[in-house]
Amino acid sequence: MEDTVLLTQTVTQLVKAGSFADLERVLEEQPLDHIADLLEHVDPSIRDVIFSALEPHRAGEVAARLDFSVREDLLDDLPTDQLVEMVEELDADDAVTILEDADPDAADAVLRHLDPEDAGELRELLGYEEDSAGRNMAFGAPAVLQDITLGQAIQTLRELADEIDELSQVYVVDAIGRLRGYLPLDVILLRPPDTPVVEAMRTDVTFAYTYEDQETAAKRAQRSQLPAIPIIDSRGVLRGQISHERLREIVEEETSEDMYRMVGLSEDESVHSTFQFSLSKRLPWLLINLFTAILAAWVVSFFESVLAKMAVLAVLQSIVPGQGGNAAIQTLTITVRGLALGDLDWRNSRRVFLKELGLGLINGASVGLTIGLLVWWWQGNPWLGVVIAGAMLFNMIAAAVAGYCVPLALRACRLDPAQASGVFVTTVTDVCGFFFFLGLASLLMPLLTKR
Amino acid sequence: MEDTVLLTQTVTQLVKAGSFADLERVLEEQPLDHIADLLEHVDPSIRDVIFSALEPHRAGEVAARLDFSVREDLLDDLPTDQLVEMVEELDADDAVTILEDADPDAADAVLRHLDPEDAGELRELLGYEEDSAGRNMAFGAPAVLQDITLGQAIQTLRELADEIDELSQVYVVDAIGRLRGYLPLDVILLRPPDTPVVEAMRTDVTFAYTYEDQETAAKRAQRSQLPAIPIIDSRGVLRGQISHERLREIVEEETSEDMYRMVGLSEDESVHSTFQFSLSKRLPWLLINLFTAILAAWVVSFFESVLAKMAVLAVLQSIVPGQGGNAAIQTLTITVRGLALGDLDWRNSRRVFLKELGLGLINGASVGLTIGLLVWWWQGNPWLGVVIAGAMLFNMIAAAVAGYCVPLALRACRLDPAQASGVFVTTVTDVCGFFFFLGLASLLMPLLTKR
Repeated sequence: MEDTVLLTQTVTQLVKAGSFADLERVLEEQPLDHIADLLEHVDPSIRDVIFSALEPHRAGEVAARLDFSVREDLLDDLPTDQLVEMVEELDADDAVTILEDADPDAADAVLRHLDPEDAGELRELLGYEEDSAGRNMAFGAPAVLQDITLGQAIQTLRELADEIDELSQVYVVDAIGRLRGYLPLDVILLRPPDTPVVEAMRTDVTFAYTYEDQETAAKRAQRSQLPAIPIIDSRGVLRGQISHERLREIVEEETSEDMYRMVGLSEDESVHSTFQFSLSKRLPWLLINLFTAILAAWVVSFFESVLAKMAVLAVLQSIVPGQGGNAAIQTLTITVRGLALGDLDWRNSRRVFLKELGLGLINGASVGLTIGLLVWWWQGNPWLGVVIAGAMLFNMIAAAVAGYCVPLALRACRLDPAQASGVFVTTVTDVCGFFFFLGLASLLMPLLTKR
Repeated sequence: MEDTVLLTQTVTQLVKAGSFADLERVLEEQPLDHIADLLEHVDPSIRDVIFSALEPHRAGEVAARLDFSVREDLLDDLPTDQLVEMVEELDADDAVTILEDADPDAADAVLRHLDPEDAGELRELLGYEEDSAGRNMAFGAPAVLQDITLGQAIQTLRELADEIDELSQVYVVDAIGRLRGYLPLDVILLRPPDTPVVEAMRTDVTFAYTYEDQETAAKRAQRSQLPAIPIIDSRGVLRGQISHERLREIVEEETSEDMYRMVGLSEDESVHSTFQFSLSKRLPWLLINLFTAILAAWVVSFFESVLAKMAVLAVLQSIVPGQGGNAAIQTLTITVRGLALGDLDWRNSRRVFLKELGLGLINGASVGLTIGLLVWWWQGNPWLGVVIAGAMLFNMIAAAVAGYCVPLALRACRLDPAQASGVFVTTVTDVCGFFFFLGLASLLMPLLTKR
């Protein structure tokens, strides 16, 4: 954000000069998202100083907007009484963002210090699983009873104004709080005030259960083109809503998550993550990858005598597995996204598989022919061209099969289809690639060595 | 969607049995998003039949919701008069979705057949660049004049009801249509009707210009926690708004786009894409990749005599470039997302670079030590372990530099930091990996061959 660049410079100078009164004054005037942006971009060594210059109620709101790593860094050594002061000013959904990352002992202490009603709401949210619809909801969904008029509904909403989280649609409930329908705001605004709610309300209401996955809830809201989605418990009672802003965050989170997991990153990592966090998440994956690379090398070792006879095979051997890996990642990405978006299910799974197989065949034939001719021209041996072309074709087919089947197999095992799928498919294409190329070369050895 | 599985079966049977009257009746009862889902999942050979069984005004709405490839497939051979009938029933933002993918001649013909006002709106939208805020906006942003009361504003909105696109906030404009502020709907509903608009309105209005990028507009709406964002022209006049639902689509599109481009896929591809489309997008990228693989093989060819002397080098040579590629893709993904989300800019670029470099060093040392010890144990030669460990360390550092610098360099050249960045960085790690490993082995040859 261009407008916070100047702010960063000013604040950095003020901290260095020790002008804390000026610092507080400058920060007071800034909107919350500018302060969040500032904290994410300043040198980490002065983050604490800036954060402690914020008034407690603003500090909480800012903390809820921060990137995960930056928030953790700031809250880690915050005294419990300051944490209590921050959290008690927040809505439950923001408070839970802060408490879920806090040290469990500190979180417990905070819950004991809050007033019972707030603590109860927080405990309810923390009781839902991470990434569930319940964990992401805000209390204070605007609701009216079904047996009143629109005019009375507006009156009720005016009285509830302070408790309402986000007003983007109004829910209609029965006497025991079960969700019966909803009123789009334009209906409330535009229809005559004496219209009964039951007559004006729409009953094709889209909702999610507290225990459902956040992505499922977001997808359902999107399909129904709703700004927010109501969340109900298993008895049908309205518990809260997921706001439009949180829905957009979920959509972004879930898409990034796929991208991150496929390449072995934690979905919580960002450029703001600490060195230790990044290292602890990336190194284990690199070590797993190392063992798959060793597996491929072990396959190559069976052909050591062939390689000793013809070193040119060593020059060419990495081309086939490399191309297979690229093709497999393409198929994998399309398949993972297809599953995530609900575009791929058993109705079209056979058709999509045949398409990917066909693509493997045509891409394999095209790339194989190209590399075969080039190798013939480069090394002057047509049979070497035949070997690499054939290996390429076979490996591209293996790539299509692996790229398609691995995420489906992961899902069948109830795992995330994106999780570590990149390792699995490239292991297949590496092992097959070396095996096809060196195996074919062994078979045709007499032809290859003939000059 | 579970609820459309049965629908798919029913419809397929009806088409096969030729019961078109029944087909029309079944489709009539279905919500639009179920029909879209159905068309995406049925066998492509019966798509046309189902689509032509829809009433024209529903066909248009359905077409606007379809995946790009499926829509193109259906509209490709649709007669112009049917296209006109479909488009004239639609809002401009949906109509533009259809016309931008249609054959240019057909689109021209449609525009000539529409009534001048509708055609004018469509021409305006088509005049904005693809992926601009203007192209994505809907006309009919709810607006009221600044010099009335809230009660009068509600009255105005009631009169405009039919023309309003989505009512999630009300814009306040002056006499010549310039945006002056906005009224959240809860303010309109909850404050007394005799409050003057100027007093109730909020002036910290977030907006985007027609010519700005759609992602910029979406990011701005998100930071301000707004459901929709108003779009103004260069004179400040309100032209339209991007709705909450379109904003969510943009967020998803842009995140997927990064993921797709990094692995050489078109952002328009999905599991629904036709074979020809997928092939035409994936094959060129695979051929480009092939040339980078040949580049790496060419580097290896300089060491052919070394490989001839020691075939075990050929067994081990792919491990170092492979690991470098994995590490580079991790750094690349974090950097590309950091740039896309605005988390990475010149204020923290040096800090993030040093962190990535440090990660390359520590990961390189850890993975290098592991593989060095394993190779020593496997091959019984400590110096071979030293060669592979050293090459690994150097290549992991090269990976960090390439993964970080390539997207920044692409951005500096005003290109998309995600575009084809995967090829560039893995080319660097392949070439460097082979060079470091075989180069070090050549230098230490006397030690390696000593038994």
